[in-house]
Amino acid sequence: MKSDPRVIIVGAGFAGLQAAQSLANSGAEVILIDRHNYHTFIPLLYQVATAQLAPDQIAVPIRTLLRRASNLKFLQAEVQQVDCIAQELTTDQTTFSYDYLVLATGSKSKFFGVSGAAEYAFQLKTLNQAISLRNHLLTCFEEADRESDPVRRSQLLSIVIVGGGATGVELAGSLLELFTGSLKRDFPHLNWSEVNLRLVQSSDRLFTEFPDSLGKYTAKKLRSLGIKVMLGSRVSQVFEHGLDLSDGTYLAAATVIWAVGVQGEVPLGLPFPAVGKQQQISVSPTLQLSDYPQVFAIGDLAHIPSHQESLSGVAPEALQQGVYVAKAIKNLIQGKTNKPFSYFNKGRLAIIGCYSGVGQIAGIKLRGFLPWLFWLVIHVVYVPDWRNRGLIFLTWLHNYLIGDRPVRLIFPSSPAILPRGRSPDQLS
Amino acid sequence: MKSDPRVIIVGAGFAGLQAAQSLANSGAEVILIDRHNYHTFIPLLYQVATAQLAPDQIAVPIRTLLRRASNLKFLQAEVQQVDCIAQELTTDQTTFSYDYLVLATGSKSKFFGVSGAAEYAFQLKTLNQAISLRNHLLTCFEEADRESDPVRRSQLLSIVIVGGGATGVELAGSLLELFTGSLKRDFPHLNWSEVNLRLVQSSDRLFTEFPDSLGKYTAKKLRSLGIKVMLGSRVSQVFEHGLDLSDGTYLAAATVIWAVGVQGEVPLGLPFPAVGKQQQISVSPTLQLSDYPQVFAIGDLAHIPSHQESLSGVAPEALQQGVYVAKAIKNLIQGKTNKPFSYFNKGRLAIIGCYSGVGQIAGIKLRGFLPWLFWLVIHVVYVPDWRNRGLIFLTWLHNYLIGDRPVRLIFPSSPAILPRGRSPDQLS
Repeated sequence: MKSDPRVIIVGAGFAGLQAAQSLANSGAEVILIDRHNYHTFIPLLYQVATAQLAPDQIAVPIRTLLRRASNLKFLQAEVQQVDCIAQELTTDQTTFSYDYLVLATGSKSKFFGVSGAAEYAFQLKTLNQAISLRNHLLTCFEEADRESDPVRRSQLLSIVIVGGGATGVELAGSLLELFTGSLKRDFPHLNWSEVNLRLVQSSDRLFTEFPDSLGKYTAKKLRSLGIKVMLGSRVSQVFEHGLDLSDGTYLAAATVIWAVGVQGEVPLGLPFPAVGKQQQISVSPTLQLSDYPQVFAIGDLAHIPSHQESLSGVAPEALQQGVYVAKAIKNLIQGKTNKPFSYFNKGRLAIIGCYSGVGQIAGIKLRGFLPWLFWLVIHVVYVPDWRNRGLIFLTWLHNYLIGDRPVRLIFPSSPAILPRGRSPDQLS
Repeated sequence: MKSDPRVIIVGAGFAGLQAAQSLANSGAEVILIDRHNYHTFIPLLYQVATAQLAPDQIAVPIRTLLRRASNLKFLQAEVQQVDCIAQELTTDQTTFSYDYLVLATGSKSKFFGVSGAAEYAFQLKTLNQAISLRNHLLTCFEEADRESDPVRRSQLLSIVIVGGGATGVELAGSLLELFTGSLKRDFPHLNWSEVNLRLVQSSDRLFTEFPDSLGKYTAKKLRSLGIKVMLGSRVSQVFEHGLDLSDGTYLAAATVIWAVGVQGEVPLGLPFPAVGKQQQISVSPTLQLSDYPQVFAIGDLAHIPSHQESLSGVAPEALQQGVYVAKAIKNLIQGKTNKPFSYFNKGRLAIIGCYSGVGQIAGIKLRGFLPWLFWLVIHVVYVPDWRNRGLIFLTWLHNYLIGDRPVRLIFPSSPAILPRGRSPDQLS
């Protein structure tokens, strides 16, 4: 008897997880590999960084999500080598042969050669990074509260966000909500005119993926909230306590957040190079590698040169590719051929915060309260677990009713988590 | 004009936090110092370690709890030196003079000279330790799931809890709930007869603080759940993957949890020694140091030789001492004298898990479902914040209705939290 075909999926982000779930009860043996044992709901990372949501509310154990079908297996491992000719994948745990391989390892930050950015700027691509940023921000306020030197205090209370896309704008609005709703009550003795929140954008408008009028609306809204929006400003160097702009201006800031630029997180040991400025893997219209049709690449990692519109790395694209690739593999197993992947764009929304958002759905431009509310509803619906959905909904209700952000924990303190039960205090 | 008297409280556990809150609007300037910016609700730590509650659900930002009164201030700092003659306290941040000093630094684990215990056994005194234990347990199951060597697999699936008091029993029951409710569904291919949960107790019964019959009931209940209760067994050495008993028996176990023994967490730089086997600070009937009446010690740190019954380090004792010391300081400020502290024992409850508990209230012995339910109700009521109370209640409801434990996150992976936004993956 011939054994079931084996599908290995690397990466349990939106694309990889969706591919695995769509292969439930397909007759294939599916092994989903990730370095973490949980799926991260990336679009809400910025709310973890700003003490609104708790980390566990946007993280779901992968095994929970695979319980629905016995053909879906999970392995927590790091990929070390892909041998496309022998059809073998080597991880730090074991080596597998595969019939089909789906690469869905996502993206990471890109620094455009800006010196110091990788070392000193905070990023927002993983849950660990979101918590690092939250801990750092809260520590800066604690330090500022007991700092008598006004120069150092103003540096501690200055934040620069680099990038005026969705992440940068969301962070700016959310930080402002944190300051006005919670931190002003926590630190009644701080001089709030010293708090300085800047958003630096290299092009001359925000939200370049939206029509011009929505970008202008966003800039106006952020400025009315007290955020300094610096358009046409390019960062040339990042330091531990500030950054240089290319026009020579130095901005002092204890917190610099890098919210611009992504590139493919290419798995180790691939026998072919990633291509282009985005360092992605080029795939055919059916999301396969042209030389190795058993190998698919989906999500942020994949670039489809033939696609009618260029994809922008949002969750719906990854989810649709996950569904597509599962269908495509089922077709191939049954000896059928596949039609090219085609992305159905349902529209796009972005949140500014403070009850404002922007969006474009079926060509109609939206701004203000309605896209803000839509954004929240859509995101709570897309969270892949009922418990998380419920907790996020309740947390938002609580936040927006009373204005407070309760997850203001400097925790774990770095590097708090040691392999064994000892705390760093006990080691000293 | 004479300035307000200054009260410094070191430690924001049950005793210190309660003392600060009871001094709200007292006319004194109150500075509460803790090394963390949050209060930990210690009695529920074991539920964080067993993936039932999320860490933020039992941690409350201290500033939230001090917002009620403008005379209450918070400082995140480490104490370095106490000068009782000059009435000065030095921290890593700044030096304060004080009119009254309240030491409430709590307790830490005590290892009775057992070699290897501090290095290899997990503890359960802090939130970091609870998360370390959770991560380790879940990692052991992930490893066991892919381990083909039966000896190593059985070691990974073996857990020994040292100590048959409240913490040990609670942990044993809660681990069992985790295994049967969640992990059996997560790991359908594991051979569950290889899972081995042992509770090692040096004396000949569990729960020595309760009447004999309740200890016997507890042992019987745990055994009926499949936990090996080893009475009269003393640990002589702990290794990375097991432990030796004093009768020469070796127990292989990837997880050893130290749930016995506490001693005072004495602040650094005290000008007098801690005393006794428990390394506590001896105080007068009014909880003051006899040589330095401006200095109080309360909670687990304090030993009251004159007290009619010996205190056992539970939260109600700490809370009552916190209330007492606030009243005592207010009296001293007004030139009044204080009556001795007297603990009012409302009774005692302990939870076994799986819908069972034991207790003794007003001399009446309780066992089974009722003390289990009382325990949950009392603990949810005592959590010092409405948000946390609500989340814990909902989590328990969810857990006990569907049996699942959703916080099964191996997160942050050690040592994941770096000072800046980089993850360890990116450093390699």
